[in-house]
Amino acid sequence: MGEELILLNFWPSMFGARVRIALKEKGLNYEEKEEDLPNKSPLLLEMNPVHKKIPVLIHNGKPICESLIIVQYIDEMWNDKAPLLPSDPCAKAQARFWADYIDQKKSKEEAEEVKKELIEIFKVLEGALEEKPYFGGEAFGYVDIALIGFYMWFHTYETCGNFSIEAECPKIIAWAKRCLERETVSKSIHDPNKVYDLAMSFRKKFGLES
Amino acid sequence: MGEELILLNFWPSMFGARVRIALKEKGLNYEEKEEDLPNKSPLLLEMNPVHKKIPVLIHNGKPICESLIIVQYIDEMWNDKAPLLPSDPCAKAQARFWADYIDQKKSKEEAEEVKKELIEIFKVLEGALEEKPYFGGEAFGYVDIALIGFYMWFHTYETCGNFSIEAECPKIIAWAKRCLERETVSKSIHDPNKVYDLAMSFRKKFGLES
Repeated sequence: MGEELILLNFWPSMFGARVRIALKEKGLNYEEKEEDLPNKSPLLLEMNPVHKKIPVLIHNGKPICESLIIVQYIDEMWNDKAPLLPSDPCAKAQARFWADYIDQKKSKEEAEEVKKELIEIFKVLEGALEEKPYFGGEAFGYVDIALIGFYMWFHTYETCGNFSIEAECPKIIAWAKRCLERETVSKSIHDPNKVYDLAMSFRKKFGLES
Repeated sequence: MGEELILLNFWPSMFGARVRIALKEKGLNYEEKEEDLPNKSPLLLEMNPVHKKIPVLIHNGKPICESLIIVQYIDEMWNDKAPLLPSDPCAKAQARFWADYIDQKKSKEEAEEVKKELIEIFKVLEGALEEKPYFGGEAFGYVDIALIGFYMWFHTYETCGNFSIEAECPKIIAWAKRCLERETVSKSIHDPNKVYDLAMSFRKKFGLES
């Protein structure tokens, strides 16, 4: 079957990383098109006219938008291998609950408040992880995919906030390292130093250097 | 099978209304427990310790939280009748996209801005509805359930904002009236005047009366 999969993305996006991982978990080939966000391509504007945001997955010409919806789409469309969501409705609802928890919008502005809240969120997530290797249990899945993209940004958060996620939430770091042993993850996540350099160049550009 | 279904709710909630409608669409019996939000019950705090919010559906002792997740849970658990989400993965992703669009958090504070944005959102939704009777097409479903709970609040929005939703977005009102012809909806939605009275009593209580 001639499947055409195009991913519109911006490389440091944790949301784009989710889609990359899900595609790789299913062993699918896809073409990634890098978007220049200040100058969005006509294709992005056409494919996601409501939000005009990456990531967008274009499957045989049809756009799917919003990273968690795309991951669910991939899981449902290619359901013969590597299940990402559990099949039990109750376990599925729990997975969706935690993925939504990761994505809840917060409106903190002070760096100190952001740091405090980040630690609080990670501690709640550590509680949900319990002693399991992955959020879903023995198998890597939906909630892991929802969270691991943020790993690219951990070094930047830590350096800017002057704290150590490992010292505060050692289980989250142990979990992240476990995820990174999977090639589908390590090949989807960019070097945290490269993300940090980008963040610093933005900071400089917008005059936020101290 | 002895199914026990308990819904923790607060009657004017548009999110709680979603769960009511989905349960009724599936023809399920449930017990509704009204929460006093300033004095949340120990049961609510135990069942939703992360967000401490209604609605929560407790199915045979197990809690399911977040209204859209609950509606999906109900659809997946009782999948032998009244399908709420389409089975095609692409149509399903589209339905999830619109339901999430309805729930996106906004941070407008000025009444005039809120009104402008509400109309903008309804106009986008009218575009998604096209000439179809329901958002999913010929059959009432997930996106309809996600949106119709807000109908309880339309009269309050219109009176407080001094505008007419029907004048701005006639298709949305025609769609809402179509939904209200279903008993599952009309029995789940409280009288808009009762909601308005509640809103006014809050306004008075918090000294917002002009």
